[in-house]
Amino acid sequence: MFSDVKNELQYVAGMLNEAIRKDTFPETIYPEELRLAVRTYPEQGGKRIRPALLLWACGLFGGDILKALPAAQAVEIFHNWTLVHDDIIDSDSLRRGKPTTHVEIARYASSKLNTAADKAEKFGTDLAILAGDAQQAWAVNSMLKLAENGIDPALVIALTRRMQEVLNRQLISGEALDVELALQDPASVQAEDVYRMISGKTSVLLAFCLQCGAAIARNKSDFDSEEQKLLAEFAENLGLAYQLEDDLLGVYGEIEEFGKPLCSDFQERKPTLLYLEAKKRLSGDDAVRLDALTGLPFYSMEIVQLLRRLLTDCGAEQAIRELSSSATAKALDALQKLPDNEYRERLAALAGYLLRRKI
Amino acid sequence: MFSDVKNELQYVAGMLNEAIRKDTFPETIYPEELRLAVRTYPEQGGKRIRPALLLWACGLFGGDILKALPAAQAVEIFHNWTLVHDDIIDSDSLRRGKPTTHVEIARYASSKLNTAADKAEKFGTDLAILAGDAQQAWAVNSMLKLAENGIDPALVIALTRRMQEVLNRQLISGEALDVELALQDPASVQAEDVYRMISGKTSVLLAFCLQCGAAIARNKSDFDSEEQKLLAEFAENLGLAYQLEDDLLGVYGEIEEFGKPLCSDFQERKPTLLYLEAKKRLSGDDAVRLDALTGLPFYSMEIVQLLRRLLTDCGAEQAIRELSSSATAKALDALQKLPDNEYRERLAALAGYLLRRKI
Repeated sequence: MFSDVKNELQYVAGMLNEAIRKDTFPETIYPEELRLAVRTYPEQGGKRIRPALLLWACGLFGGDILKALPAAQAVEIFHNWTLVHDDIIDSDSLRRGKPTTHVEIARYASSKLNTAADKAEKFGTDLAILAGDAQQAWAVNSMLKLAENGIDPALVIALTRRMQEVLNRQLISGEALDVELALQDPASVQAEDVYRMISGKTSVLLAFCLQCGAAIARNKSDFDSEEQKLLAEFAENLGLAYQLEDDLLGVYGEIEEFGKPLCSDFQERKPTLLYLEAKKRLSGDDAVRLDALTGLPFYSMEIVQLLRRLLTDCGAEQAIRELSSSATAKALDALQKLPDNEYRERLAALAGYLLRRKI
Repeated sequence: MFSDVKNELQYVAGMLNEAIRKDTFPETIYPEELRLAVRTYPEQGGKRIRPALLLWACGLFGGDILKALPAAQAVEIFHNWTLVHDDIIDSDSLRRGKPTTHVEIARYASSKLNTAADKAEKFGTDLAILAGDAQQAWAVNSMLKLAENGIDPALVIALTRRMQEVLNRQLISGEALDVELALQDPASVQAEDVYRMISGKTSVLLAFCLQCGAAIARNKSDFDSEEQKLLAEFAENLGLAYQLEDDLLGVYGEIEEFGKPLCSDFQERKPTLLYLEAKKRLSGDDAVRLDALTGLPFYSMEIVQLLRRLLTDCGAEQAIRELSSSATAKALDALQKLPDNEYRERLAALAGYLLRRKI
């Protein structure tokens, strides 16, 4: 089943890669390093999960997925501009195993323009801000190209407005909340704010992808309809389960699978739901132990084991696993109420693939 | 004449202020400091030159300027998001006599969240990036609201695409070029690149405002038509003359009028057209004198006088004044070929007001 969904994802990625490469939007951008920066993330690609959600939701309601392709490109480029700006904000130097946009441009300044290190770094950040700005415009422009494919202009306007009014606003708010929570003592963070942040940073874009694909197929933007609400429910729960699985994998997984050092959330003192659950359950010496295992400069395998035991013994691990299972069940339950066809199977398989589960 | 155009601008500003204040777009943005930041520049307002250009170009072709109001709001908010990001890039701390967005948010972090100075500064920059991102979405959303005013959806899509494909791309490129030129030795900068930068940073938005207003009135997006080309010519030359007058005012003006310390362009080693013209004309000892008067930490009135004499004696001042007069004449010449009515008079008066001339 997973190999099937991987093949289907590769097919979507193939279409997307070609559409993005052929798009003339970045061509007249200057100077050269800015033009390259605008192209890089969209062309590098990832798994193209978001375009797949959009196209398959379109197929789910009997729509022509080829006509929806500009929208699939739009959500991918939208995702990419948020990554470019997030990478600046998080001071990350690697993305998909390659230098982040601001780091790459800083290197260009050092080598091609012979700029001193501190000025090169500032130049990298400045141009990466601008690259993300141009990418946001590129995403909007791609969405508006739906009209060239015969989609009703009034619907195109409604979808683009939803991308700007609902998606952008909530996603930016989620990111800002993440930045603000990082300033607080993690122990004082409210779980409610973390749920809100996960929804804004992850689920809202997944929901938009599905709802946009469905709206194109159904030729209407009735986001309050039963079908659209079910898609949002699927996305909200999928996003939450994905984040919870990621929290668990960061502690209980293998380093190769997680892609980052184990316990990096604890190292960075991030208020994950797993951490907050343990904090709630622990008292006395155990609460002191949790504090002592947070924010360490290095997590040896011995320390990872200690933290695992602490989180397991207090029941936090189990609670988070149950929460994830419950969210997964809710996601699939919503999906099962939607039309029964091959696209529904693909969406279910994609959920399983993302959550590393057999579904 | 100037008091007339000032009154007309105030009328436009009044309409804009009300529209922006009533707009619900920012309402659901969180956290609070981000919501306030998104509102600040658009609500503070400036002279609202860009909305005036749009509305008056609409009136010039007999359009209903009330219907065009969402577009006027869109160009103003578009201008504002570029200012928020520019202020980060230029590390400016003041805008219209008040703290810039990133400085204001950093202060909030220091006082309300008790954050250390370096973290507060980073927080200010991070949230200001996000505020500009949300404002870009707000601008697009405002433009799309034209459809609610009965403007043909296909035309609304064409105008929004032009805002993203042409305006955004050229403006961002102009800003990036400005950042890159600042890394170079000003003496090695090509005048051609400076013209390109002025066009991208200033003229392109002015042209978009005029062309958008005209397209709404004419109910078509024929940007290759004679009328639209004349509007672009007016804008290109107005933008250039404005920049040249600003260069001259920075050296020959009064500090109260310029709003910044005199010779700040020379202090910051900016490759203005005035500087490049002098560089071209000077040789031997005078060339050394120009170099010596560039990049100084402080410009006393004596130094300002020395620089003025150097720029005047070599003919650079006169050359730039002639270039500005020629651009102004070209702008007005283009305008005179457009319909003769009160809106044309207003646009001419606005040009005169911006260029501090009787026209």
